[in-house]
Parts: sequence; structure tokens; C-alpha cells
Amino acid sequence: MIPDERPSRDAARAFVVVDWGTSSFRGWLISADGRVMAESRGGEGMLHCLDSGFAPVLGDHVARLGAEAEVPVLICGMAGARQGWAEAPYLGTPTRLDSLHEGAIRVDAPGDIRILPGIAQALPERPDVMRGEETQLLGATEPGFTGLVCIPGTHSKWIRIEAGHIVEFSTYMTGELFSVISRHSILAHAIDGSEPQAADGRPFREGLSTALAAPTALTASLFRLRASQLLGFEQRADGAARLSGLLIGAEIADAVHRHGPMQSLWLIATGALGRLYEAALTGQGLDVTTVDAEQASRRGLCKAAARIWRARH
Amino acid sequence: MIPDERPSRDAARAFVVVDWGTSSFRGWLISADGRVMAESRGGEGMLHCLDSGFAPVLGDHVARLGAEAEVPVLICGMAGARQGWAEAPYLGTPTRLDSLHEGAIRVDAPGDIRILPGIAQALPERPDVMRGEETQLLGATEPGFTGLVCIPGTHSKWIRIEAGHIVEFSTYMTGELFSVISRHSILAHAIDGSEPQAADGRPFREGLSTALAAPTALTASLFRLRASQLLGFEQRADGAARLSGLLIGAEIADAVHRHGPMQSLWLIATGALGRLYEAALTGQGLDVTTVDAEQASRRGLCKAAARIWRARH
Repeated sequence: MIPDERPSRDAARAFVVVDWGTSSFRGWLISADGRVMAESRGGEGMLHCLDSGFAPVLGDHVARLGAEAEVPVLICGMAGARQGWAEAPYLGTPTRLDSLHEGAIRVDAPGDIRILPGIAQALPERPDVMRGEETQLLGATEPGFTGLVCIPGTHSKWIRIEAGHIVEFSTYMTGELFSVISRHSILAHAIDGSEPQAADGRPFREGLSTALAAPTALTASLFRLRASQLLGFEQRADGAARLSGLLIGAEIADAVHRHGPMQSLWLIATGALGRLYEAALTGQGLDVTTVDAEQASRRGLCKAAARIWRARH
Repeated sequence: MIPDERPSRDAARAFVVVDWGTSSFRGWLISADGRVMAESRGGEGMLHCLDSGFAPVLGDHVARLGAEAEVPVLICGMAGARQGWAEAPYLGTPTRLDSLHEGAIRVDAPGDIRILPGIAQALPERPDVMRGEETQLLGATEPGFTGLVCIPGTHSKWIRIEAGHIVEFSTYMTGELFSVISRHSILAHAIDGSEPQAADGRPFREGLSTALAAPTALTASLFRLRASQLLGFEQRADGAARLSGLLIGAEIADAVHRHGPMQSLWLIATGALGRLYEAALTGQGLDVTTVDAEQASRRGLCKAAARIWRARH
């Protein structure tokens, strides 16, 4: 038997971290000295677990990770929502990233299972919430960081961080609007398939330019996408990329307008969507630093876990 | 037997006019001297007829109207789309409203059945199309009319008319976005039922103000509607009215920005939706003249029919 296959004395202080979103589960076994020992991922997100329960899903993944059954577990994401496993109440802005762990709640289950809190901007004029992105921000930034961060996705976030505090943020329904408009509106006739991550080609760049040039006209530009095809100016194969350009452009136009002149921006993203945002943002003259989204989650969880359990040992 | 129940000599020159949309059929029997003799309406819009065929549906309504089987019929709306009964090719802008009838096509069926054309704005930078609204514009305006007209609905239209010509128009997906967002997005949790015509109360007015004050921020304002309820600032019962305010506000903000300073506006609308737009537009300091949408369709059809068949007799 090789040492990695059974808990060693060191592994007794190993822990598991989990990014548990609406539709996905990603878990890692982390050694006491911070190394990634194993990874386990699946589609058992919060929506799945509303039926099956959360504890059995976690148990399966812990076993797959080769960890002992009662290994300490730290979770971020929608598992901590009111409708999730156990509610981890929001921390209000401004919030220090390096004290997120203080808001973690313990799940009423055997072992030591904790869920990190989300962040709420509890302002009547600009109410907003996040769950999971705060952990990515912790993972992607150094202590005392100041800057603007964009985390694209179903619900894209733009976050202003000052001296290591989340001070203000906005959520854009960009990814979700792509999905519902391309599947459920008249634009379903103008979009071939429902590929959410369109290529950075001419239709994407034109959609982006249109949205940036006329940032108040989104709901008209959407109809024009259909009209353009009816009148033979564009092909259906270009519809998804144009829609993506229009929605990402509307997001960037508003965010840049809101945050004023800026030179640099941090992007926490991955894959094709990350490349679309990189292209769009550098096209606006911004100096973009991209951090991988999954690494950011894992590192943020590990930083918080170290603060929770290092204190214990 | 009373005279109205069988065709008289006068009724031999009567005609039927039909507003045949995507999801509804509204037909009227019009006497030779222009009086409305009977009305027949149903849910057999274009989508229904793709399966059942158009001719049998029209035949049923003609019988219900008490007209002879081969009465002349003039149709406007989606029945003339490429995927409709018979394509009535678009006329391009600029188009004289009082020559719409010249673009009518005859359906390959017994009798004299014609369909009015839609209008296309075949500009690569601002492609747009309408089918049905052109007939409402003919019905709602006097010869030589100049002004800006708004026709709210699933696909809201803003049309600039100069000296009786449609010179330019824009379509906003306002009504359709209300429907798909309230039913298929995360906002389904924030909207009670899917009542498309919300009351002109505080949540509507606040949504409107938000959109008018931050007209580039629509996709963020949509998420805030959800966040506002999660954080206890608003109740679910107010969600539909706020969403309606946000979407109508986004439309008006862009249209007013686009068309520049204006004092007056014509509104072709009906019922609760018409009242919401009246409130929103008069709140912007505009002098609004409202014309009933259904009367506008019928009158436009009658004007065009008179030009077609008066020439014949």
C-alpha cells in the first residue's frame, strides 16, 4: 500500500474544499501543507441536491477523494443559500476578504463541515448579492489588493476592491439572458443551437461594437438581430456570436461608464468565455490580467480553510 | 327574416377585413358604405394555422360574419409573412401610407382574398421589419400626417412619419422580454404569476425611474429586482410591475434619446398596456394622443380596401 492511499499522520490534518454551485460540484482534497492531493467533480449542484439531499452527495465525493469520512470540509457557493444545504447568512459590504472565514457556519452533520458566507450589498438603491465569487476574489488577490475585478458568467459580477475589502459590486444577467433569449424568444429562430460560448469572430465584434456605440438600445438591437436575418444581411450561423457580443457589450458599456476611466482590470474567468471578455476588454484599451476561475475558487477556499483549521491545531 | 340576415344588393359590395396576427384573428364585415356590420374573433393566429391551414379558418369566420362565401377579403398582419399563408413582400422605407394597398398580393384561392404588405427598413446598420403596424398607422393618421408614433406590445414600434410616409422605425422587444424573463429566468422566483399588464403603482413607477435614470444598466437592474426581494426591500407581489417599469423605461429612454426633444407623441394602444405607456410618456412631459389599436387596424384595412375595390366597381 502506498502512503497516499490511507490517511497518514499528516493526512489527519488534510481537509476537503468544495465549490458547490447551482449546477456543479467541484471538490479537492488538500494536504495539511496546502498541496492538491485529489479532485472530484460532478453535476450534483444545488438544484440536484434539493431532491437527493446534500450529505449523501458530499459523502460520495469525499470517498472518491480518498479522504477519511470525517475529514474537515469547507464549502463555498449556493450550498449556503437559503434554499441550499444550510444558510450561511450574507456578510454586508464593505467586507474584508481575509475575514470571510469568520462568517462560515457549521452544518448540523457529523464531522466538521462549514460553509462560507456570501456577500450582500444591502442598499435599497443598489441591492446585490453574491455566493461563491467572494471566495474567488479571496483566491485571486493578494492581501491589501485594490482594483476592479470582472467575473463573467451566468450572472456576471463587477467588483470594486479597496485595500482588501469588497466595497461595491454589480451583477449583470448576461449569461442567463443569452440562454433564455436564445431558447425562448423569437431569436430562437435566429440562433443555431444554443452554444453559449461563441467565437471571437466578426459577428461577435460587430455585436460588441453595436452595444458599445448605442448602450441604451439593447432591447432594439436584439430585435434587429432577427430583422437582419429576415432581410438577408446575416446568416443564422452568426446569430449566437452576435447575441453574445450585444449582451457582453451592454455589460461592459455600463460597467465602464459606472466605474469611470480605468487603465487596468482583473478578470476571473476560464475557457472560451474568458477569451471573449479578454478580447472585448482589451479592445476597450484596458490592461487585463486574467486569473483562472477554478484556481481562484480553490485557492480562496484553501486560504479560508487555513485560517479556520490552522487556528485549531 | 330581417334584412341583415341575408345578403342584400348592397351587401354584394360589402367586404371583409381581417387583422391576422401571430396568435389572434379579428375579422369584420364592412358594408359598401363603410359601416361595421359584424365582427368575429378567435385565437386562430398564424401559429395555429400552420397546422390547420389558413383557408378553412377564414371560411369559418366569413360564415360567422354572415357574409357570402366569396366576399372580397383584405388581410393585414402575420398571415402575409414568409411562413404565413402567402408572402406579401415587404415595401421598403420610405413608404407612403396611402399606397400600402398597391403592395397587396392576391392569395391563390377562390374569390378575391388579398394580403397587405409589411414594411422593411432594409438598412444594414438598422434593419427592421413590421407586419400589421403599418395598417394601424394608416388607420390612425390623416393624409399628410407628420409625427412620432409609439405602438407598444410584444414587439413595440416607434415610427417616424413625415408627410404621410413611414420614414424610419425601431422595434423594441419589450413585451416579449417581459414574458421570457418572467417565465424562464431566475426572476420567475421574483414574479408572482406572469401578468403582463401590471398596474401603474409605486413598483412600476420606481422601475420606470430606475431605467430612465440609468438607461445603460438594464441587465444589472434586472438582477437587482431579484436581489431586492432576497434582501427584504420588496415583495414578490411587486415584481411584475417593477419588471414592466424597467423594460418600458429602457424602451422610452432609448427612443426619446434617439428622436431628440419632442413635445408630442401619438400612441396606438389599448387597455392596461396603453395606460402604462400613457402614464410613462406623460411623466416625461410629452403630450400624448392615444388611438385605440383595434380601431386603428380596422380603419386602416377599410381605407386600403376602399382604394382596392372602389376602383373595381
